[in-house]
Amino acid sequence: MNKAKLSTESYKGVRDFYPKEMALQLYIFNNWTKTAKKFGFEQYDASVLEPAELYKAKGAENEEMVNEQTYTFIDRGAREVTLRPEMTPTAARMVAGKKRDLSFPVRWFSIPNLYRYERPQRGRLREHWQLNCDIFGSTEEVADLELISLAHQLMLDFGATEDMFEILINSRAEMTALFNDLGITDVEVINQITRLNDRKKKISADEYKEALVQILADETLVEKVSKLVNETPETHDTITKLRDLGINNAKIDRTIARGFNYYTGIVFELVDTNPENNRSMLGGGRYDNLTEMFGDEAIAGIGFGMGDVTMKDFLITHDLVPASVYSTGPTVVILPLESEQNLEATKIAHTLRQANINVATNFSHKKLGKKITDAVEQGTKYSIVVGSDELVSQTFTLKNLKETSEQVGSIQEIIALIHSSN
Amino acid sequence: MNKAKLSTESYKGVRDFYPKEMALQLYIFNNWTKTAKKFGFEQYDASVLEPAELYKAKGAENEEMVNEQTYTFIDRGAREVTLRPEMTPTAARMVAGKKRDLSFPVRWFSIPNLYRYERPQRGRLREHWQLNCDIFGSTEEVADLELISLAHQLMLDFGATEDMFEILINSRAEMTALFNDLGITDVEVINQITRLNDRKKKISADEYKEALVQILADETLVEKVSKLVNETPETHDTITKLRDLGINNAKIDRTIARGFNYYTGIVFELVDTNPENNRSMLGGGRYDNLTEMFGDEAIAGIGFGMGDVTMKDFLITHDLVPASVYSTGPTVVILPLESEQNLEATKIAHTLRQANINVATNFSHKKLGKKITDAVEQGTKYSIVVGSDELVSQTFTLKNLKETSEQVGSIQEIIALIHSSN
Repeated sequence: MNKAKLSTESYKGVRDFYPKEMALQLYIFNNWTKTAKKFGFEQYDASVLEPAELYKAKGAENEEMVNEQTYTFIDRGAREVTLRPEMTPTAARMVAGKKRDLSFPVRWFSIPNLYRYERPQRGRLREHWQLNCDIFGSTEEVADLELISLAHQLMLDFGATEDMFEILINSRAEMTALFNDLGITDVEVINQITRLNDRKKKISADEYKEALVQILADETLVEKVSKLVNETPETHDTITKLRDLGINNAKIDRTIARGFNYYTGIVFELVDTNPENNRSMLGGGRYDNLTEMFGDEAIAGIGFGMGDVTMKDFLITHDLVPASVYSTGPTVVILPLESEQNLEATKIAHTLRQANINVATNFSHKKLGKKITDAVEQGTKYSIVVGSDELVSQTFTLKNLKETSEQVGSIQEIIALIHSSN
Repeated sequence: MNKAKLSTESYKGVRDFYPKEMALQLYIFNNWTKTAKKFGFEQYDASVLEPAELYKAKGAENEEMVNEQTYTFIDRGAREVTLRPEMTPTAARMVAGKKRDLSFPVRWFSIPNLYRYERPQRGRLREHWQLNCDIFGSTEEVADLELISLAHQLMLDFGATEDMFEILINSRAEMTALFNDLGITDVEVINQITRLNDRKKKISADEYKEALVQILADETLVEKVSKLVNETPETHDTITKLRDLGINNAKIDRTIARGFNYYTGIVFELVDTNPENNRSMLGGGRYDNLTEMFGDEAIAGIGFGMGDVTMKDFLITHDLVPASVYSTGPTVVILPLESEQNLEATKIAHTLRQANINVATNFSHKKLGKKITDAVEQGTKYSIVVGSDELVSQTFTLKNLKETSEQVGSIQEIIALIHSSN
């Protein structure tokens, strides 16, 4: 037997979720689920393991991404496997696989964990969770509006107000038309500008202009493109329609591009207005050709992803996590005074559970006071001490740990007391 | 761009969860969660990725298991990584890592997905989910009883009755004492018999006896061991105490061994009494030395795992899945008659959502009848048609799709109708 001491650290760049961290994680997942269902989205899931070809299929750019930024390995059957880095290709694969059986429009959501092989740095994890919401099988503009409305509602359902975040909208198709109006028609040039715009907020104005000169080699054109990208149109049809749906914090931002090369129409991001959190919290767009890679027939899609790490940062920065989230303990803790009462205490716990009450028994040898402190720390509401006196008289004391009040009665009376106070 | 047609199949040996399959999966997970909380267990989680050494640490037998039966690969930082094949080592790692901060006994549960590199065959998947429940920091017998009581309650909370399943109990320590009584004291011989007993139900009586002769080379001893292993003691302290806790379908089974070599005390399995499902549904036991590998101080543990695949088989075989589980649709579907009503329909959906009603809009170009059939198939309760007449009069018809009854009113009246019928 190997006696070397093993490390208790997790693998590099991933997180352990102890009960309190898990509670916050579940609070986020449950809120996401509730809001997605409010919009009629159905939940789906798939394995973390996907054939590597799923991510390579969109050409050389993706091949590089798969080789350098994903966990990809060869299994014993010589299959190349990737730990999914994003969910949209999986959703597209599943939709394409059952397109004959599905009733479009299909509204799907999932909360997958995703993997990226990145140099670990602050806030850049190798594993994170993401809410993915997609509508398949509709090219209607109203699908775009609905999805942005869902993004907005997700924030409101956490108690956020419109001043805390902003929705930035752009359109790949619209940008192409605007570039064409300026005489820029070369697809490769447009792609280069798009990629540059995607980085614009991370570089200085001078760096941006310099890079634009490199691409366009024409001072006048550089000025025109700069002006176009920097201006926010005062009126815009999408923004007007979103106002009709109660959304007042959306605006056009010509720099929004989204990294993935499968977007074809509208693209959008949701950002925290607090400058401390400058990363995008949610990003998505329309991708009308993605399912093409599975066959001849394309199914239109529009979707977004929202990460757990940025969501957590947002909720903490804006003080939106209710304290009750961290109550991970049961409703009642039963405290046998001596080991001799362990079995009787467990029987009482059993009786309470039959009445649908969440109960734990603390049969450790710690002092009673310490056991009560531990219960309070877990958010447990009541304690019941079980000693020989209580067992002889069959009369127990229900102690309310929050109000430090007490009530006395038989187990059946105590069950009634607990039920009546909920 | 690669134009080769990609497969829509998932990776070999894993499952896609379309909404109805996901609904059943979530029904199981939610029931598991509810029952675990009834016993005061707190939820935790960790990454699928673990350092490979976590599974190799218990010696050569495990080293072989890691190399041949797990997904293990080398990352770009030359770290050996394993996709977790079981959760107990992760739980032990996390408990050992925070042992100064945790208040024992710690009751933890998790629903991880686990990976095994196995030859795919019927019912043997490479990825499955498992409920893991563990109590750390207690050597009290009552902890063993509580955990078996939890296993029993998990089944009851799915609507199972005691005739549908059986709890088989054994004890590693007790078996060692019984073997010692027969004069068998060599640890390696006892381990050999234990491993043979673990396979006993899968081989014939003759094969069992033959293997026993190989191990013991003594006819009289073979007879004695056979007798010992085959008999179910009529009275047993553990069984008596479990009866006190309302459990009448537990019995001693001397063949129960459990595969993992970290068990030290009680071991148990839960099996379906229907002969069609002969696999163990739940297995666990006491492992008092597992955290030793992280340092000098051992923390006692007892736990079990319960798989999603066998659980599903059980529920389906015994007809325990309520039909309502498969209702994945929203409460209301709004049906615009023409594309021109899409935006107004979406506004009405928005108004209903503000009243906490789950709503989808079906803006496809299908016939109304087909849209209603689709909604019924998803378990949607109501439809509201939105045409130009309805928009002019601001009077809408709420159609109950289950009772095929109708009620007419303004949107606010319809909201009141929906709320009052829930």
